[in-house]
Amino acid sequence: MSLHGTSLINGGPIAPGGHPFAAASPLHPEPLSPEFYEATEADVHRALTAAEAARTALEEAGSQGRARFLEGIATELESLGVPLLERAHLETGLPLERLASERSRTTGQLRLLAALLREERWRDLRVDPPLPERQPLARPELRRTLLPLGPVAVFGASNFPFAYSVAGGDTASAFAAGCPVVVKAHPAHPGTSELTGGAIVRALRNSDLPPGAFALLQGRSHALGEALVRHPLLCAVGFTGSLRGGRALFDAANSRPAPIPVFAEMGSLNPVFLLPGALHSRAAQIAAGLTQSITQGGGQFCTKPGLLFGIAGPELDAFQSNLEEAMRAALPSTLLHSEIQRSYESGAARAAALPGVQILTESARPPEPALTQGRPLLLGTDSATYLAERSLHEENFGPSTLFVKAPNLEVLLQIAARLEGQLTAAVHGTDAEAEAVGALFSILEQKAGRLIYNGYPTGVEVCAAMHHGGPYPASTDSRFTAVGTAAIQRWLRPVCYQNFAAPSRWWNNL
Amino acid sequence: MSLHGTSLINGGPIAPGGHPFAAASPLHPEPLSPEFYEATEADVHRALTAAEAARTALEEAGSQGRARFLEGIATELESLGVPLLERAHLETGLPLERLASERSRTTGQLRLLAALLREERWRDLRVDPPLPERQPLARPELRRTLLPLGPVAVFGASNFPFAYSVAGGDTASAFAAGCPVVVKAHPAHPGTSELTGGAIVRALRNSDLPPGAFALLQGRSHALGEALVRHPLLCAVGFTGSLRGGRALFDAANSRPAPIPVFAEMGSLNPVFLLPGALHSRAAQIAAGLTQSITQGGGQFCTKPGLLFGIAGPELDAFQSNLEEAMRAALPSTLLHSEIQRSYESGAARAAALPGVQILTESARPPEPALTQGRPLLLGTDSATYLAERSLHEENFGPSTLFVKAPNLEVLLQIAARLEGQLTAAVHGTDAEAEAVGALFSILEQKAGRLIYNGYPTGVEVCAAMHHGGPYPASTDSRFTAVGTAAIQRWLRPVCYQNFAAPSRWWNNL
Repeated sequence: MSLHGTSLINGGPIAPGGHPFAAASPLHPEPLSPEFYEATEADVHRALTAAEAARTALEEAGSQGRARFLEGIATELESLGVPLLERAHLETGLPLERLASERSRTTGQLRLLAALLREERWRDLRVDPPLPERQPLARPELRRTLLPLGPVAVFGASNFPFAYSVAGGDTASAFAAGCPVVVKAHPAHPGTSELTGGAIVRALRNSDLPPGAFALLQGRSHALGEALVRHPLLCAVGFTGSLRGGRALFDAANSRPAPIPVFAEMGSLNPVFLLPGALHSRAAQIAAGLTQSITQGGGQFCTKPGLLFGIAGPELDAFQSNLEEAMRAALPSTLLHSEIQRSYESGAARAAALPGVQILTESARPPEPALTQGRPLLLGTDSATYLAERSLHEENFGPSTLFVKAPNLEVLLQIAARLEGQLTAAVHGTDAEAEAVGALFSILEQKAGRLIYNGYPTGVEVCAAMHHGGPYPASTDSRFTAVGTAAIQRWLRPVCYQNFAAPSRWWNNL
Repeated sequence: MSLHGTSLINGGPIAPGGHPFAAASPLHPEPLSPEFYEATEADVHRALTAAEAARTALEEAGSQGRARFLEGIATELESLGVPLLERAHLETGLPLERLASERSRTTGQLRLLAALLREERWRDLRVDPPLPERQPLARPELRRTLLPLGPVAVFGASNFPFAYSVAGGDTASAFAAGCPVVVKAHPAHPGTSELTGGAIVRALRNSDLPPGAFALLQGRSHALGEALVRHPLLCAVGFTGSLRGGRALFDAANSRPAPIPVFAEMGSLNPVFLLPGALHSRAAQIAAGLTQSITQGGGQFCTKPGLLFGIAGPELDAFQSNLEEAMRAALPSTLLHSEIQRSYESGAARAAALPGVQILTESARPPEPALTQGRPLLLGTDSATYLAERSLHEENFGPSTLFVKAPNLEVLLQIAARLEGQLTAAVHGTDAEAEAVGALFSILEQKAGRLIYNGYPTGVEVCAAMHHGGPYPASTDSRFTAVGTAAIQRWLRPVCYQNFAAPSRWWNNL
């Protein structure tokens, strides 16, 4: 499977140019071939000019045409077969099996959005009929539909090389809305990105859509991302990554002469509240479920539970033993790249060194340094230390979690009330407990985009009711989701047509 | 009708304090009594603390409870009778008849939102049923509803003392969503604001809702508005006014540690494109309709047509005569306050002094300086001058418009393509012309939130299909409307409930 190492603009690879950079593997120290070339500001301009030129054709393809295009991307991704998974495995260290299921999820969401398009209900069409006899003034007919915003920039994530990357949820929903897309590939998997980008290029061609509707820009520099966000033809931004990165793009977009929306999905601690009754009846099961949720994918999921809160007592003590046992048995796993691994280790060391914080246990198996591994880690503290120490409220990306003991329910509610914005918040309890602590749910509703009862935050369903986004800093706009069919709403704006009943061709898709 | 001259916090007037300022009338030089007092930063904090404390009660009142509350505000506004209109007339100079119809519109939109609440469809409820047998993983039940964002700040507009002010569309839709509201009253009509605020206070009391759910802050300083927007308990902002004012609040909101959304409806030129066939058959009618739309309310509507574009030829010449005649016959009217009047005159003089710009005509009757009047004015230029001169692309608030002659359709399309974001864009044409210039409509769709065919932009319907908002700088977020039932969507965020089937009380309104 040959790679060019360059950006894709207007239907194909561009000539090599810009600063070269190496693709790295967390599984061995040698750089991967080929070398990649950083896109330039001129490339940004070419990509956006082509995107702007393609917008009318993409919109005029209509829901049905775009549905076929999305399905075409899914088919092309599948036909890349095992070599695509192997390249992704080399670049990310994620196991082939996980990558296969992530690709399935990615093709699944492309097809789900195609199905949404075929129904046409996504346009939220509203019609107010004319009232010619109304006094004192007649009312003209008013129709409202949704139109695409225009060219969208998507910043791929490191942790999901398929589902939140080049052909992931942001790209798929933007295409569904009718927006051309310029992807800034994550530099941790440039080869996977080029292969995926090639699938999109072929799908465009097969659908007779203009090649400018998609571009892939390779690069590592923040300047490239900023140039993309500041380009006057850009209309919106989708981003999945760190709080710092997301906020920088948000600030750049808002300081433009004409600001544009940024949908950045950033950090989240995904707190889990453990009530005594649930621990009494299901301690081992919850400990196993949480350990799986904490360590899955190397703890590099945006919904990894990074905070566990319980009320001191015999149930919590027994649960702690179960949890320690499960975390000791969990295996180290390869992290996405060496920078994440170093950051994970230093974050864990800093937290463990805080007065009042203890290492409760870690994986019995030491990590393999040559494989860039992270070691599952269970830290513990009391609620007073947690409440006083701001750094414990920040995400540590990797397979660790902080177990916090509160003296009573009142303090548990205080902790909930002082949480920052989160993607998710979970509660384990018996139904009687859940009835009794309505206040906890009321607080968590203000803090998170998704509440989970007797379940685990990882495993984000791609469906109509999903909301993946939350109050800041979980995301920059709590009103929009990055996952599920409602993700399309980010890229649309309403337009009202007044008195257009006679010439009807300007809403031929309604 | 007695006035306290102070802000309203927690159910009543606060003690006088802060810098005093006078309420002025454009109809006479003497200040109105009583004196008003600028709210302080401490008042902002008290208002928001009370708002935060009231949010649960407002949400738990549910759709039905909030519907009764909105209807209660409408009833209270009506029972203020003629004295409310008289105070508004003194403060704004707007005729009593116009103010009566604006109040009707305001009570109408309160009742329309109440009707929306009663239907419950506004929650966009989405349910994905559980799939316990699904392989490899069972799916839990997922339900999504919409919850209020939290306390909202509303900045009242000068030009609509009822419909876009204390109990106007922003406040009504935020209350409908379940958000407490802190209004920053426009300093040009503080007495009208206090009276309207009193109606809301009484309606809250009659609905057994906490008084903290509403506050009215009086004041003239930008610092007060900034303090409100920067307060950590504030969750969103609604604003109607100038580009400079809206952008300042937008920038302040986005530079907070936790940014919040700002829905600012700002300037708009509302271009009108005049095609020859329409002018051939309806020149006098269109001239009369446009003159009415330009001069209505002193030209102080956000949808006033400030740009007219036509193609040079005998039809346009004949239409120009009709338009000049109609504009000459139009009467000067009192503007909202002396600052607007000065700004209108200087803006008109600056434009008229530009090389290539002519005064085509003005009202035959000179304005009455003691009544703060603005004189209807028709300026003319050619398309080359218009395209080259940026200042002609900026709104001049008042009863003037710029008539631009293009040599041909091609240049008309160029002009359309270079428009800034607009609230509206209108086209007058025959059906055959409209069919022939699909490109014009395609361009205007990208530029405006509402397209009007053979009609006039003023007279914004309050209905489900209305979209009042447009690409920047018409508004800060083109995806949301300030008018109509969809306005409620600005103040809501989705929350997904996973596996909550058993304890169902946390979405008792679903």
